[in-house]
Amino acid sequence: MKYIFTIIIFFSIYCANAQVTNNDSTICSTFFKQALNDDWAIAQLEYLVKNYPERLCGTKNSIAALEWSDKVLKNIGADSIFRQELMVPCWKRGIKEKGKIISKISGTKNINVCALGNSIGTGPKGITANVVEVKNFEELKALGTEKVKGKIVFFNRAMDPSFYYTFQAYGGAANQRTRGASEAAKYGAVAVVIRSLTLSTDTFPHTGVMRYDTTVAKIPAFSVCTSNANELSDWLKNDGQLSLYLESNCEMLPEQKSYNLVAELKGSDFPNEYITVGGHIDCWDNSDGAHDDGAGIIHSIEVLKLFKDLEIKPKHTIRIVMFMDEEMDQRGAKKYAEIAGKNNEKHIAAIESDRGGATPVGFSMDVADSVYKKVISWSKYFNNYGIFQLIRGGSGVDIGPLKKFGVPLFAIMPDSQRYFDYHHSGNDSFKSVNKRELQLGSASIAFMAFMIDKYGL
Amino acid sequence: MKYIFTIIIFFSIYCANAQVTNNDSTICSTFFKQALNDDWAIAQLEYLVKNYPERLCGTKNSIAALEWSDKVLKNIGADSIFRQELMVPCWKRGIKEKGKIISKISGTKNINVCALGNSIGTGPKGITANVVEVKNFEELKALGTEKVKGKIVFFNRAMDPSFYYTFQAYGGAANQRTRGASEAAKYGAVAVVIRSLTLSTDTFPHTGVMRYDTTVAKIPAFSVCTSNANELSDWLKNDGQLSLYLESNCEMLPEQKSYNLVAELKGSDFPNEYITVGGHIDCWDNSDGAHDDGAGIIHSIEVLKLFKDLEIKPKHTIRIVMFMDEEMDQRGAKKYAEIAGKNNEKHIAAIESDRGGATPVGFSMDVADSVYKKVISWSKYFNNYGIFQLIRGGSGVDIGPLKKFGVPLFAIMPDSQRYFDYHHSGNDSFKSVNKRELQLGSASIAFMAFMIDKYGL
Repeated sequence: MKYIFTIIIFFSIYCANAQVTNNDSTICSTFFKQALNDDWAIAQLEYLVKNYPERLCGTKNSIAALEWSDKVLKNIGADSIFRQELMVPCWKRGIKEKGKIISKISGTKNINVCALGNSIGTGPKGITANVVEVKNFEELKALGTEKVKGKIVFFNRAMDPSFYYTFQAYGGAANQRTRGASEAAKYGAVAVVIRSLTLSTDTFPHTGVMRYDTTVAKIPAFSVCTSNANELSDWLKNDGQLSLYLESNCEMLPEQKSYNLVAELKGSDFPNEYITVGGHIDCWDNSDGAHDDGAGIIHSIEVLKLFKDLEIKPKHTIRIVMFMDEEMDQRGAKKYAEIAGKNNEKHIAAIESDRGGATPVGFSMDVADSVYKKVISWSKYFNNYGIFQLIRGGSGVDIGPLKKFGVPLFAIMPDSQRYFDYHHSGNDSFKSVNKRELQLGSASIAFMAFMIDKYGL
Repeated sequence: MKYIFTIIIFFSIYCANAQVTNNDSTICSTFFKQALNDDWAIAQLEYLVKNYPERLCGTKNSIAALEWSDKVLKNIGADSIFRQELMVPCWKRGIKEKGKIISKISGTKNINVCALGNSIGTGPKGITANVVEVKNFEELKALGTEKVKGKIVFFNRAMDPSFYYTFQAYGGAANQRTRGASEAAKYGAVAVVIRSLTLSTDTFPHTGVMRYDTTVAKIPAFSVCTSNANELSDWLKNDGQLSLYLESNCEMLPEQKSYNLVAELKGSDFPNEYITVGGHIDCWDNSDGAHDDGAGIIHSIEVLKLFKDLEIKPKHTIRIVMFMDEEMDQRGAKKYAEIAGKNNEKHIAAIESDRGGATPVGFSMDVADSVYKKVISWSKYFNNYGIFQLIRGGSGVDIGPLKKFGVPLFAIMPDSQRYFDYHHSGNDSFKSVNKRELQLGSASIAFMAFMIDKYGL
């Protein structure tokens, strides 16, 4: 009798598992098919980036984009939508920058420059000075005050194309942009110009945030397009005495009110336990922000739409978050975590999309061993849709502050090869995003959220 | 004593294996680093497609492109270069096609059409007739002669976006293009117009080859861009009596002499055993042929360049083949296999690149079980460069005829999401190919060729 029972129990477990497996496989396909058969996402992205480009925090467009998102989320059928108010820095670029190489040997040449975010401006008179080229802070230090004082420091360390994953190349070059100005100011430089952080050789200057070290003088910081960076470097080889004219009219205005927008699809069993899915609504003011992070915004909204369209009711509440101010000071990220902490919210997981809208190839996970094992056990479903890289690593800037509460963090990884061709530049426009690649991103995140909701972590 | 010997033997095997493994891993990285640090490939692609666009077999540009390839291969340092002469069909599009919808209810509208390759033309008077829309041959059959006779048949079956791998979607829709005209002619149709085979909704008509069934009348065959296909379908719902004006001036001229170009890097140990790496030099006459198959040509040439740059001397001869006439009648493919058979050549493997220049994600292999197992054992190296899909499946049209000799066949699989946005249309231009994605393709094929050369199959 006991023997028969054992068989029955084992058989039941086997059947239950078999059913779960088939069911998950089917649901995975359903998410992907639904996304791939609906041109909604690309149409929304087009509307967002063409009507509300240059959505830097503190701009009218950043707020208008949130108001538009609010309407879209209501139409899809979010159960609730609310705002998390916060203050944001308000950096304004002002009149377009100018840059010119002036050489007694080679002549003069206008170059494509732009101010880095947070930089002070030169004012309308600009700065004219000789130039020293360095690759890194060690070279700068070796030159010392004697050779740097009164000069413009040209940081010309290219992103290393050897890395397969371009974010690694970015990581290896980004400190020129974020800290270059203050490092150069230590030795008396009057301005810095940074080689644009892209692997492409083109004419777009790529901006991005820089930070001042409060112990040294603030000097204006620019980026120059890679094409002109190569030329400037070549000209310097012929004429070490050439000078550069740089002009920017940017300034920091008083902080302004802004907000994160949060939409919820209420959980049936655990309405007070959250799975956050988000991207950032702000983007650089020289850009339409199609990949960065229009794609992440549309991915996130489409996750909610997919659950609604497929009539899948989650057990936990799924929160779609449009974070404000990822680019300047991450105020939205800080506010979201601050409120989560204050309210003692239970967060099951958070998934961020902020690496563009290309074909998804994986998820990077900042999670415990046991969580990682569980997610790896779902690989077979993801593999059918080209997602093979379920790896441990960083997540994203906007969900990062949840880490202190032990929340498992996920970042979708689209193919990164093209990303920095667009990043923080005028090249990040609607036409650079492909319909199907965007759809696949939404479906991947939606299915990950579904599995987390169903099985927990 | 024996015990100690056994330990030593085991230790030696362990060390040997460890060394081999490290070595292959290093060589893999070396191939990829070399490709990613050299902008040679994208510059060559730009030169090829901008100077020799519209390289349909039988055109001057198809020959000029081969002559250019010959010079490039010589400069790189091919050990020998030779031609395989052959005859190619010579289909000429003539004056640009015209298409117009004429409706008494909705008015008139010009539409973007193009003749399908191999189609007869309407001549300058064109054809004006009523239209019947069908999705497939079953619907056509159901309409029968009564409803089809004297009409233009509009095949409007869209590629199914549900498939992850877009070549499957293409496969499911392509028979409209290849056989639609003769199927419609059976029921007395006067012409056919086919929805362009793309998943994008755009204004480019996509061409491609069609074949006539010799038992029925030849009627002119066109494709219409997807945007106009949707409109035509909508208009037909309002006005079943609308007519379509179609005009094409294409014709088949006498066959012409052409050739495959073959460059060799001689094997040190087995100079008469071959690993073929190839793509096709011809492309459609409405296109620059950047992805199809400029990318495959550059991939193939760069494989040779990588071996030369890295001073890796293969044991077997690596043959870089620029196949002529993949698009119309695959004469180059047939000739290459015919000569291989006649000369009783020993082919170790053949690798084709004819699926575009996007980020490589895998290889499709038409190989025996034992070969497949061996290649799978190399996965770890490929995985580091995003290549996870080492799958069994079809190879490619140009190396396909080698199958009868039992040659293991490989096709590189770039990410397919964007491919049909470009395929066989004016949209397949230089700007649609990304530098790094192209470089990764060359490195992937080079490393596969290296491993096949080193370990055999």
